[in-house]
Amino acid sequence: MTKISVIGGGSVIFSGVLIKDLCLNRNLAGSTITFMDISKERLDFVLSLASRYAEETGADFNFEITTDRKKALQGSDFVINTVKVGGYAGMEAERDISENHGYYRGIDDRVCDYYGGIAAYHQLKFAFDLAKDIENICPQAWLLQAANPVFEVTNLLIRETGVKAVGCCHGYNGYKNIINVLGLDEEHVHVQAAGLNHNIFMTKFMYKGKDAYPILNKWIEEDSVKYWESPEYLHDPWNAELSPSAIEMYKYFDLFPLGDTVRVGPLWWHHSSLKEKAKWLPAGGPDSEVGWTMHLNRLTRGLGMMRKMAADPNTKLKTIYPPVSSDEPFVPFIDAIANGNTARLALNVANKGTIQGLPDDVAIEVNVKVDKNGIHAENIEKLPSRLMLYFLIPRWLKMERVLQAFKENDRKSLFLMLMDDPRTCSIDQAEQVIEEILHRPWNKEAVLHYV
Amino acid sequence: MTKISVIGGGSVIFSGVLIKDLCLNRNLAGSTITFMDISKERLDFVLSLASRYAEETGADFNFEITTDRKKALQGSDFVINTVKVGGYAGMEAERDISENHGYYRGIDDRVCDYYGGIAAYHQLKFAFDLAKDIENICPQAWLLQAANPVFEVTNLLIRETGVKAVGCCHGYNGYKNIINVLGLDEEHVHVQAAGLNHNIFMTKFMYKGKDAYPILNKWIEEDSVKYWESPEYLHDPWNAELSPSAIEMYKYFDLFPLGDTVRVGPLWWHHSSLKEKAKWLPAGGPDSEVGWTMHLNRLTRGLGMMRKMAADPNTKLKTIYPPVSSDEPFVPFIDAIANGNTARLALNVANKGTIQGLPDDVAIEVNVKVDKNGIHAENIEKLPSRLMLYFLIPRWLKMERVLQAFKENDRKSLFLMLMDDPRTCSIDQAEQVIEEILHRPWNKEAVLHYV
Repeated sequence: MTKISVIGGGSVIFSGVLIKDLCLNRNLAGSTITFMDISKERLDFVLSLASRYAEETGADFNFEITTDRKKALQGSDFVINTVKVGGYAGMEAERDISENHGYYRGIDDRVCDYYGGIAAYHQLKFAFDLAKDIENICPQAWLLQAANPVFEVTNLLIRETGVKAVGCCHGYNGYKNIINVLGLDEEHVHVQAAGLNHNIFMTKFMYKGKDAYPILNKWIEEDSVKYWESPEYLHDPWNAELSPSAIEMYKYFDLFPLGDTVRVGPLWWHHSSLKEKAKWLPAGGPDSEVGWTMHLNRLTRGLGMMRKMAADPNTKLKTIYPPVSSDEPFVPFIDAIANGNTARLALNVANKGTIQGLPDDVAIEVNVKVDKNGIHAENIEKLPSRLMLYFLIPRWLKMERVLQAFKENDRKSLFLMLMDDPRTCSIDQAEQVIEEILHRPWNKEAVLHYV
Repeated sequence: MTKISVIGGGSVIFSGVLIKDLCLNRNLAGSTITFMDISKERLDFVLSLASRYAEETGADFNFEITTDRKKALQGSDFVINTVKVGGYAGMEAERDISENHGYYRGIDDRVCDYYGGIAAYHQLKFAFDLAKDIENICPQAWLLQAANPVFEVTNLLIRETGVKAVGCCHGYNGYKNIINVLGLDEEHVHVQAAGLNHNIFMTKFMYKGKDAYPILNKWIEEDSVKYWESPEYLHDPWNAELSPSAIEMYKYFDLFPLGDTVRVGPLWWHHSSLKEKAKWLPAGGPDSEVGWTMHLNRLTRGLGMMRKMAADPNTKLKTIYPPVSSDEPFVPFIDAIANGNTARLALNVANKGTIQGLPDDVAIEVNVKVDKNGIHAENIEKLPSRLMLYFLIPRWLKMERVLQAFKENDRKSLFLMLMDDPRTCSIDQAEQVIEEILHRPWNKEAVLHYV
């Protein structure tokens, strides 16, 4: 019998999807699922959702809740870390501070705040401490890192702890949006992607056994402009996968970006203002004030709706979570390792030569086969030069800087990192924003950490 | 008998010093020295200097001149490449164009124009063609790369040709200026340096067998401010080795920079205007309009003076070139390889694990022992994290970009490179300056090369 513990399991949106995927997978029947969180109230809600969904779908699990992390870890075979320390409030406040100092949409990443606070301090610290607990309590367990920044945290875990860690993200599935627009039948599509988390590109794009890049090229040439004028594109900031920014990345980097890749990357001039963003991304894209506000509102509304429906015992939860498996990799991964039901996934694992030109100990995102023996990365052809030199290597370097600052308690590194931001005009600007952020109440640990 | 050919041997300043060093080294007596250049007039001048200096010093060499490169290479054991294609004129004109587009002091390198023209095209092409000739005509010869950019060119040579290439620069000797100010006796000083050409740091600084960094620290604390107010500092833009910029680099990178290092590097805010430069470097430093104009004027004046004195048969050339060996590595290197007279030098050679964290095939600058068997790099301790992440890795990456653009004929790469310059504000700005430079008469080959 498998035990899965979900750290931050009070995240209703995350746990809701996980519960559904678990209940739809009959191979894991009888397993124990322990939701751990600091909020008892959220845990109670998740437990009621889980119990009802299992009942509705006839699934058989032993659901547990606890606010005691060490207790949750006891006997775990799989630990999922979905914790965003402090939630969104600090991140949004830091963004405001940054904007006051001339950094549109925040300093952590110039396009989106995936670092989750200054140099990802809280996220790194939390995951590291969790891994140390796993080493002591359930050293054989797999740690599935779901919380951002997946790239930085996974690297910290695979290098600095003895835990079997793997970074999980659903960005790879972005190809489904692309083939949907292109009118291709998913059944006949084969996509291979590689890169770094949130920085991945299609290394293979096949349709009915043939290279499908020509289909994409034809669409770009003949249909893209019309598409960019359509309401489905124009009014949805999150519908960015075939935006002019994505096409521009393709032009410079010779492979097509997938998922969140179009939100990040070196083309900073796409993101210098809302006006510029709107030229390259629908309505300014996911990380603009338009797209991000929409996202936060959706989270609030979605949670409210779920609470309302869950409060009514007559509502079938299946109406909230239709019984179709999501694209999340957690349940297929666990089923593959625990039961040998082989899965093809896109995961973040140590490079070990898979991507030529990146060090072996860097966590890359790549298609893998997972089975009882572990994770086996697919072969990746040498990536295009410009993609390496202007996209992946700079992003790799940024990760190394974030980790070095964290490991060596190095405030100078935070400063030098920010001086490399194209929006930094002076020493004072960079020093002031760092100091101001570090001295906020939610950073009282961080200000002592970076000396 | 050894044959040395000097490609670009009409460079009077370079050849003058080389002739002196040769004449002072008795071990190479009887060797043939062939000066090759495209200017017969300059060659005649160099030949007359060489013959007279040899006579004055009683040295015995077979000096030859030729405008035929292939002829010069025949039978060569050592080939020195000192060619700056097109001289300074194009470089200065490109700097003017760049300044008109908002790039103070030029685009090639934000602080100094060592790339020697757009992405070093002419220098790379020339050295590559020369190496191909060497492969055919004298494949056993060593190629000593003296012309800048030494870093980029040496990398191209060691990776893309079969020639035994080594990059040569005198920047390491900058430590002598430092110990002179500190009042240390050179005889008791031991310095080890490592890094990339023009980007080197003292990995060891010993005085009378003990760590001398504390002496430097004490000077910084107690004497530096007074020194920065002294006329010897204030009025000499080239006296930058103990400038506030050097101290600032030391503060961030934990080792002290040597030679030209203080002119380059990631601290771009030291170089944003003459006013800023003057805060960090004496009178604005070597690459300011002040320092660089002084340099160009000195070259012109020095050449004029030499010509005048050389025109007078009664003048002893020893008054121009006192018979003391220079710090240039060429003659000691040749003497070590040809005659087994071991030399300790600082040279640019393939990394092969010497500097941890840089790929094996990158040309690093490091102290080496040279003997009949070749070049043996000294062991280098792991370099400080910040030095790697904010200085050496970014400089390594820039080299890779320059070489990739050259090898893959890639104008997009020229563009992306420039978009990473902190002074670039828009796509138009970068595109316009690149197009304008590429379409100047001296770049008619380059504009066809980068497509």
